Amino acid sequence: MSAQIRVMNAAGEYEPYEEEKVRSSLARAEADGVFQDRIVEHLRTKLYDGIPTKVVYKEILHLLKKLKSSLASRYHLKQAIMELGPTGFPFEKYFAGVLESYGYKTVTNDYIRGKCVTHEIDIVAWKEDCHVAAAPRNDIAALGMTSSKIMIECKFHHEPGVRSDIKDGLYTYARFLDIKENGFDEIWLVTNTKATSELVAYGNCAGLKVISWNYPEDFSLRLLVSQKKLHPITVLNSLSSVDKQILLANNIVFCYELLNPKVNCLPKDALIKAQNEARLVIGTN
Amino acid sequence: MSAQIRVMNAAGEYEPYEEEKVRSSLARAEADGVFQDRIVEHLRTKLYDGIPTKVVYKEILHLLKKLKSSLASRYHLKQAIMELGPTGFPFEKYFAGVLESYGYKTVTNDYIRGKCVTHEIDIVAWKEDCHVAAAPRNDIAALGMTSSKIMIECKFHHEPGVRSDIKDGLYTYARFLDIKENGFDEIWLVTNTKATSELVAYGNCAGLKVISWNYPEDFSLRLLVSQKKLHPITVLNSLSSVDKQILLANNIVFCYELLNPKVNCLPKDALIKAQNEARLVIGTN
Repeated sequence: MSAQIRVMNAAGEYEPYEEEKVRSSLARAEADGVFQDRIVEHLRTKLYDGIPTKVVYKEILHLLKKLKSSLASRYHLKQAIMELGPTGFPFEKYFAGVLESYGYKTVTNDYIRGKCVTHEIDIVAWKEDCHVAAAPRNDIAALGMTSSKIMIECKFHHEPGVRSDIKDGLYTYARFLDIKENGFDEIWLVTNTKATSELVAYGNCAGLKVISWNYPEDFSLRLLVSQKKLHPITVLNSLSSVDKQILLANNIVFCYELLNPKVNCLPKDALIKAQNEARLVIGTN
Repeated sequence: MSAQIRVMNAAGEYEPYEEEKVRSSLARAEADGVFQDRIVEHLRTKLYDGIPTKVVYKEILHLLKKLKSSLASRYHLKQAIMELGPTGFPFEKYFAGVLESYGYKTVTNDYIRGKCVTHEIDIVAWKEDCHVAAAPRNDIAALGMTSSKIMIECKFHHEPGVRSDIKDGLYTYARFLDIKENGFDEIWLVTNTKATSELVAYGNCAGLKVISWNYPEDFSLRLLVSQKKLHPITVLNSLSSVDKQILLANNIVFCYELLNPKVNCLPKDALIKAQNEARLVIGTN
């Protein structure tokens, strides 16, 4: 049956429905074979030709929530990162946090004087060299001299189906050229959705590292995040939208941060419920 | 009285109301002192603190239409260029036409292979050298070897108050760098609205020529257009919106093109009316 069915993605393009894709997305959320079977069987009763991927997604999420809430939260990851919006600021903080957990030092939203004008740089990141561990935390220039200093532009999209494109790559690269002499060695462009193939081609040629939701395979946002269970609090089903916004406004972005005993910006009941779910999602009981 | 009154511009900023500005905008539309007096006097009865510039503009236009229609059309110039939208394509064609009337050769929407990727370039322009006058019209590369070849990015805004900003300058410059080795010598960014001061600063420093509605003083879009009466057909009050779209779709962009006896895409009555108005606007009776 599945051979005849097409799904319509968020960009409005048709592609064949593949059970294998559903199974691997469930596997990434750590759903075992039994769960996977139940879900693909359930889907068979719901599919029709041209069904939007978001409807398929909602069906899966709905069933997962009934079966096992923590599984639903993990499955919800890409959508949850989108819920960090509408502005790009929480995503910048989120990605800086992801990098920190991989041993990078970061500074967000710093103003860097370029050759022509001053630029606000989303994230400056570097790996600290043991010889300069004593350098002041904010003295990026000093640190940059001893390790690779990276300028990172974050391109956050609040809507599915919107891809980062060549223009994003071009302006990021020109900005890098302008500040390069200020000690920068690398330039990355990070997006929470997809990158067009033109952007990827330009990045590879110009020396701009493009990181999108599922590219490059060994350093994609999905891999970086799921590998270390860096789920944002927006995955949590037990939190209301308002409570999510309160937490983000208080700079609590990751599920693991919610487990810090100092968190006190939510009513106690809501907090305990969210903390219990967070423990299940990131697997620390 | 005028000292106490502020106007609110399209970007939502307040600035003092200045009769002199109204007078000079009327003078640019070739309104003599008597017309100017009548209009500033009329405005005095309508002004209040915080009045939006678009309300002031509408008052002036309304009165001008009653007093002298051809004057109203010339006064309407900036708004008329905005009406070339909603897409940027007619503006690209319009600006290419403006350049042609200053002796440039142009090709619009050409695909140029860069070092990394292929780019669609809004306008490629050059001044033909008499020695290569016999070169084929479309062989830009050949022509470009003998005169300065210019890559032009057009940034059209359909709404007032939107300014072209540093990002536009950055991506344009990076695109230029990618195709530069294909024989390009200059890079221009042309916009129908204002450019931010940051974009102008970046342009001056990086060697990107920024041309906006009123910058630079000796090569602004306003100057280029009004100096040679290159009014677009959208200035004409006698044309309906639908008829304007029909003409644009038929590549008739300038008022003077309407006077070409071969134009036949409008009903005869409407065409004669529009041609009469066009003659008054561009002053050829």
